[in-house]
Amino acid sequence: MTTGTPDVRVRLDLSYDGTDFSGWAVQPRLRTVQGVVEEGLARIVRGHRPRLTVAGRTDAGVHASGQVAHLDLTASAWAALPGRSVRTPEAAFVDRLGGVLPGDVLVRRASLAPEGFDARFSAVERRYSYRVSDRPETRDPLTRRTVLWAKNPLDLALLTEASDALTGLRDFAAFCRSREGSTTIRTLLEFSWRREDRGPDAGLVVATVRADAFCHSMVRSLVGAVLAVGEGRRDLCWLMEVAESPRRTPRISVAAPHGLTLEEVVYPPDNEVASRAESTRARRALD
Amino acid sequence: MTTGTPDVRVRLDLSYDGTDFSGWAVQPRLRTVQGVVEEGLARIVRGHRPRLTVAGRTDAGVHASGQVAHLDLTASAWAALPGRSVRTPEAAFVDRLGGVLPGDVLVRRASLAPEGFDARFSAVERRYSYRVSDRPETRDPLTRRTVLWAKNPLDLALLTEASDALTGLRDFAAFCRSREGSTTIRTLLEFSWRREDRGPDAGLVVATVRADAFCHSMVRSLVGAVLAVGEGRRDLCWLMEVAESPRRTPRISVAAPHGLTLEEVVYPPDNEVASRAESTRARRALD
Repeated sequence: MTTGTPDVRVRLDLSYDGTDFSGWAVQPRLRTVQGVVEEGLARIVRGHRPRLTVAGRTDAGVHASGQVAHLDLTASAWAALPGRSVRTPEAAFVDRLGGVLPGDVLVRRASLAPEGFDARFSAVERRYSYRVSDRPETRDPLTRRTVLWAKNPLDLALLTEASDALTGLRDFAAFCRSREGSTTIRTLLEFSWRREDRGPDAGLVVATVRADAFCHSMVRSLVGAVLAVGEGRRDLCWLMEVAESPRRTPRISVAAPHGLTLEEVVYPPDNEVASRAESTRARRALD
Repeated sequence: MTTGTPDVRVRLDLSYDGTDFSGWAVQPRLRTVQGVVEEGLARIVRGHRPRLTVAGRTDAGVHASGQVAHLDLTASAWAALPGRSVRTPEAAFVDRLGGVLPGDVLVRRASLAPEGFDARFSAVERRYSYRVSDRPETRDPLTRRTVLWAKNPLDLALLTEASDALTGLRDFAAFCRSREGSTTIRTLLEFSWRREDRGPDAGLVVATVRADAFCHSMVRSLVGAVLAVGEGRRDLCWLMEVAESPRRTPRISVAAPHGLTLEEVVYPPDNEVASRAESTRARRALD
């Protein structure tokens, strides 16, 4: 970066169809969302090779409707963005990225981040959805990339009972791929299921999963375990037993990635994003 | 077909993602829905190479959620379909086709057609939808295959005024690719626009187009003409003038295929399908 120029932090709101991506995070020789967007950024911002920090590192095949990331630019690079037809750097950023990114990833919005904002550490909540078709008549080739086609009908009462049992503050070690020294204690704020009655999702069973943060593979493990109960293959007793496992257990099948979409990342008011980032970092450092 | 065996007519209800198909109708060396489904049928029905008759011959890139087709089989081939695990020919048909068809086309239902049923000529109504995103924040990579991304915001009042002016019984020659000797008089039962307020289509502008039947390229020409008014590029005067053109006019831009979906084909009660088919055939013969 140009020395002596103060940085600006830019918040990006983005969406992607995860089907043809090997997940968010950059990996050598693989097509990843981070890799594709960072390449696009390098083409529109002169002299920069910006790095993205993301709120939710989605796995291969997982989609995002409301993903959030940030990057740092020099103030001069930011100010140089507008052209003749587009007046603000914010609009120019979205416009130019749209011109260079492929159709399966879209930056919806670029904005100057408030002081102390960190896409990952300032977040107070992540919300995911998981879509399942459990009846032949609700299968649809047009939504096959975002909907799991279950073989057996789902019992909504069983799904609800099972997911209720997992909600709240607890150790989710049984549902997390282990990472040395990091905590698996999380607050699962919501884990609910409904059968949609209208619109393009009509007839589908849709889960909403909200937590302050998720550890690796946690959402898909939670969904996989509860689907086993909802399909009648397992009972609540089994779920309570496997949920107590002190580490990730092969008894829980991870649900397929394509049913999962990161819908929203929630941040506190602007004047609290800095302190939230600080307290999250401090907690993670303790792990 | 085996001689001496009475035929059965099978109705198929099917859906497809039109993105990777060169339309419905079989064409040499091109991947078409009809071609792919007929190949699948040949694999599951012994000794047959069944031909499909369809309600709506969709163009390349157009989708279908509620397409209907029929085929004829010998009664013995139909009766031979069930296997050990699937008891009825209807269920066996869907199950086996599901095993051989690719992911972008799905036969949802197979059923014995009522006496005199013809997927094309018995139909009394076809319903299409057309989806448009006219605001950057409603663009979504996950729905990019079924939603047109318009450059300019749409005025719902103008769209409604324009489409109202085209509704009813009239000669749609201006909107139809000409076919020697066939009528272009149709009854446009509904042509309405709404902005969705919830669900996966939230924020999108969606047209509903219903008619007894459509001539070739008619739905996309109607949508293209009305979008020009809704975007403010043309006015109602212009629309009224081009609509009077005695033949297809290049002044009307055909809307892109990917926003269009055949949602439903409506048939009369079972005891009327035969007479409806007869009267449609007679009318077409007059042309």
